[in-house]
Amino acid sequence: MKKKYYIGVDIGGTKILTALTDKKGNILSKAKKPTEADLGQEVIMRNIQESIDKVVDKSEVQKESIIRIGVGSPGPLDYEKGIIIENSNLSWKNVPIVKILNEINGIDVVLENDANAAALAENYFGAGKKADCIVYITISTGIGGGIIINRRIFHGGKGNAGEIGHMTLVPESVYQCGCGNKGCFEAVASGTAIARRAKDAVLDNKDNLIYKLCKGDLDKIDALLVAEAAKKGDYLALEIFKITGNLLGVGIANVVNLFDPEIIVLGGGVMSAESLFIDQMVESLKERALKPNLENLVIKKAELGKNTGVLGAVAVAMGDDLL
Amino acid sequence: MKKKYYIGVDIGGTKILTALTDKKGNILSKAKKPTEADLGQEVIMRNIQESIDKVVDKSEVQKESIIRIGVGSPGPLDYEKGIIIENSNLSWKNVPIVKILNEINGIDVVLENDANAAALAENYFGAGKKADCIVYITISTGIGGGIIINRRIFHGGKGNAGEIGHMTLVPESVYQCGCGNKGCFEAVASGTAIARRAKDAVLDNKDNLIYKLCKGDLDKIDALLVAEAAKKGDYLALEIFKITGNLLGVGIANVVNLFDPEIIVLGGGVMSAESLFIDQMVESLKERALKPNLENLVIKKAELGKNTGVLGAVAVAMGDDLL
Repeated sequence: MKKKYYIGVDIGGTKILTALTDKKGNILSKAKKPTEADLGQEVIMRNIQESIDKVVDKSEVQKESIIRIGVGSPGPLDYEKGIIIENSNLSWKNVPIVKILNEINGIDVVLENDANAAALAENYFGAGKKADCIVYITISTGIGGGIIINRRIFHGGKGNAGEIGHMTLVPESVYQCGCGNKGCFEAVASGTAIARRAKDAVLDNKDNLIYKLCKGDLDKIDALLVAEAAKKGDYLALEIFKITGNLLGVGIANVVNLFDPEIIVLGGGVMSAESLFIDQMVESLKERALKPNLENLVIKKAELGKNTGVLGAVAVAMGDDLL
Repeated sequence: MKKKYYIGVDIGGTKILTALTDKKGNILSKAKKPTEADLGQEVIMRNIQESIDKVVDKSEVQKESIIRIGVGSPGPLDYEKGIIIENSNLSWKNVPIVKILNEINGIDVVLENDANAAALAENYFGAGKKADCIVYITISTGIGGGIIINRRIFHGGKGNAGEIGHMTLVPESVYQCGCGNKGCFEAVASGTAIARRAKDAVLDNKDNLIYKLCKGDLDKIDALLVAEAAKKGDYLALEIFKITGNLLGVGIANVVNLFDPEIIVLGGGVMSAESLFIDQMVESLKERALKPNLENLVIKKAELGKNTGVLGAVAVAMGDDLL
């Protein structure tokens, strides 16, 4: 039987990561190129195509053996039509990326939201391997996620479902979200929210480690700095993580009540500080999730780390082939 | 071709409603019996069976032409195993209702959560007929709902998904929900929440129509009474509906961001007062839902009224036959 290979392309704001894998997801070759997002569609597309050519050249795989190319991109996008509608990080609009890459390469191309792709990667290759239904939540500067039901990405009704980060969690919050709304899960429980809580607090109270560590420059305060202060025992920083952990638990409980997954997989930079908020998170999750949904629910850390994006694109390329 | 018929049984706390329909959902015969919930499993099951016998007898349909019996019941239940796990309204536990009814009648039996069944009914026969993906939300003393994706009930990972009423909407709320949590959608935006807001308010302020209408007996305050006061122009009552409308909009926006349906179908008793809260509801929905998800979204009133429950059970009986 002819061997099957797949290519995944992860389009980030600063870099394009591309990989060629066998049908088990083993990476045979990899390429990393700057996106050059500010130089417009033509340059970005050229960089993407060069990275595809590179992974093919570096491997010993014939282009004819490549079954599909998967592309992961931040949204909004029309995954059915294969169009990236907009991307605030990239200076382009309504790019029919599937059509373009298909015409150049003569290979089927599939487009997917990067958070959904990451969820599929954790389901196929990572922490969610043993389950059919997982929810992947990434907690970093924002909060994103993807929902996998029966080993397929859940797209809901019109294709744009699963926007976990944009459920309103605190209706009366003044914390503005990038989407325009206030009090979104992302606005109140992300790394950005941790930093904002710290900035707001040190305005009134400078007798704490956060203020010392930023040396009076509030712009230097981010979730990492607050975590550093907390790990050194700073009371304010510890409290900020507790508040955030509580809200993370509320958001996850909502996901559990609405999707009833077998596994919740948590990824993203903020998880490196998990010891600072995990107790509050689990406590409020248990308080707020329905008993039947909590039963047999597993919470796990994401396993794929820096490869999540590109393996997500590979998983999208594989589609149902792996099932 | 042999004609196909279906039976739907809707088990309520006080009455059992049963109907026999043709394959288009036209009701050919109907039966209504008291549940006699306090008399235990044997009596309840006898009442259910008698209602099945009655709809068959009243119609001219041969029992052999009945394809399936659908049963709608409040949860928690194990729809895959066909077991009603518990029911706070009925004095029974772990009833293998599918097995029991199947053995007596020699007909396939399917069990479903009543809110999910109602959603399917609105999708098959009611306000959601034209869509493949709808979310049905019933706003009455509680808030329940069902999610239909590609004309099938969305059960999520472990079967208990779609618990819309139990997403936490106001984490710091003191409003207790029946589920044990505080600040659930149901706890802050249902008819019960409307009544509670009114009761709390009239404790401090008796110069309003709500207090007059209940004649000082706070136990008489329910959503209907508050609506009556509001319709007569009472400021406090109008404010209560505005606050509730705003929270209904927040909850619906979350549903829209997470499931991206084509149609939201709103039912339940509180909808009879829709003019008092619809503007605030739509305003906060538009403020909080993502733009791509709002596009082409339709909000409609439920159409099946008192038949929702029993037609839901019929829709469950039909399953994919109607597709």
